[in-house]
Amino acid sequence: MTREPPEERPPLFGRNPVLELLRTGSRRVEEIAVISEGRGPALLELLSLAKRLGVKISYRTRDQLTAMAGDAHHQGVVARVAEVSYASLGDLLEIPASRGQAAFFLALDQVQDPRNLGAVLRTAEATGVHGVVVPKHRAVGLTASAAKSAMGAAELVPVAREANLVNVLEVLKKEGVWTMGAAPTGGKLPWETDLTGPLCLVLGGEGEGLRPLVARSCDFVVSLPMRGRLESLNISAAAAVLCYEVLRQRAGRKNPRRS
Amino acid sequence: MTREPPEERPPLFGRNPVLELLRTGSRRVEEIAVISEGRGPALLELLSLAKRLGVKISYRTRDQLTAMAGDAHHQGVVARVAEVSYASLGDLLEIPASRGQAAFFLALDQVQDPRNLGAVLRTAEATGVHGVVVPKHRAVGLTASAAKSAMGAAELVPVAREANLVNVLEVLKKEGVWTMGAAPTGGKLPWETDLTGPLCLVLGGEGEGLRPLVARSCDFVVSLPMRGRLESLNISAAAAVLCYEVLRQRAGRKNPRRS
Repeated sequence: MTREPPEERPPLFGRNPVLELLRTGSRRVEEIAVISEGRGPALLELLSLAKRLGVKISYRTRDQLTAMAGDAHHQGVVARVAEVSYASLGDLLEIPASRGQAAFFLALDQVQDPRNLGAVLRTAEATGVHGVVVPKHRAVGLTASAAKSAMGAAELVPVAREANLVNVLEVLKKEGVWTMGAAPTGGKLPWETDLTGPLCLVLGGEGEGLRPLVARSCDFVVSLPMRGRLESLNISAAAAVLCYEVLRQRAGRKNPRRS
Repeated sequence: MTREPPEERPPLFGRNPVLELLRTGSRRVEEIAVISEGRGPALLELLSLAKRLGVKISYRTRDQLTAMAGDAHHQGVVARVAEVSYASLGDLLEIPASRGQAAFFLALDQVQDPRNLGAVLRTAEATGVHGVVVPKHRAVGLTASAAKSAMGAAELVPVAREANLVNVLEVLKKEGVWTMGAAPTGGKLPWETDLTGPLCLVLGGEGEGLRPLVARSCDFVVSLPMRGRLESLNISAAAAVLCYEVLRQRAGRKNPRRS
């Protein structure tokens, strides 16, 4: 449970992700590299914002930008950001109390696709999730592609990377956090389950869902109804529905009726 | 509003998408092409299912499969399927009555990313959406990548492609369908809005959201609360939350309390 040293320093690229990064001022933009010719209005807007914020700007060829991004889909702009570092589980556990809120964590078991991780982080940021736990092995970390799909959320939501997810769930339970697995079938309906207490939502990866040992470690399991013939949802869709169900129930608590 | 002739015939590829296609028997698998050597257990399971279903099987090299799929990420299997054809708006309108249900449609304004379209179709299939409308221009259609991300849902949910989305909304309104736009801010909370009547949920594309003319054509607008610093959700996340909110409210109607 010690703090992880950062292993990588992914640049962020693409017009919207970089624009979001600048707008949210989430932090630590060390440099914006922009294509040296053929900039459209969107890039010019982005440049003027970067200048106003005092961010260092450099001009590069398309190939230089591709080399920086490690990806050809940079749309003419790459941002070098300070290191994305992982939080520790202890860091995460301090956040709910510091905000006076019931804990709201996500744990992702074996999510392999960086776009899915990015999409989940974006939803987590929007729904006030306090932190996300990912396993160290057989799972994607905070890569450049994940950060791009997260549209800036990777810089805003603390992510802890832990060797053993089952141990993490045991620690959370000892801290009074309910662990709720999401499975394609066999669980309770989320809207008939009280999600207003301290909670960690545990979601499985793209292929197989939760590993059995992880599922058994959860206090209870919820399932979203499936009205068609397919057997499961995309993980980022399931995460979005469940995170907003938590938000809906908690908003209802504080503010029973706003209509 | 006439029926569109199909323009493309995308093969489906990848182990899970092809397996889902076979399992759901959604239809029309004309041939499965499988890699000629080095097949793991997942491919062997898939092959045995295909044999049981009487589907034609051929064996190819990795490069031949890449050429068939138009994509190197085929994981050793490509399915040729019968044409994905677009439905007409008239076809879509007949479905709710034929099932004795309140209409539940999705209209997507300017969604450009095939993975987003695929993810939305997968959620639509799971939540009992009767049909999806996409614009003909400046929007992605039922391409091979969209079908792959849809994991078989592209074969199960009727999709209509129409030139003018505003006209479509007018037709729907005349048919008694409420048109509900989703915007990042300024709308009602979806869970304080009655979504049990005939409904078309209108979602904007990745960058700009709904075009103003489309937004103004909607009967009303809903917005999901954003608790962080980012300004919008991924479209497939927003679609999932809103489609499940419709399902939640409608299930509650028929079956007030199941706990």
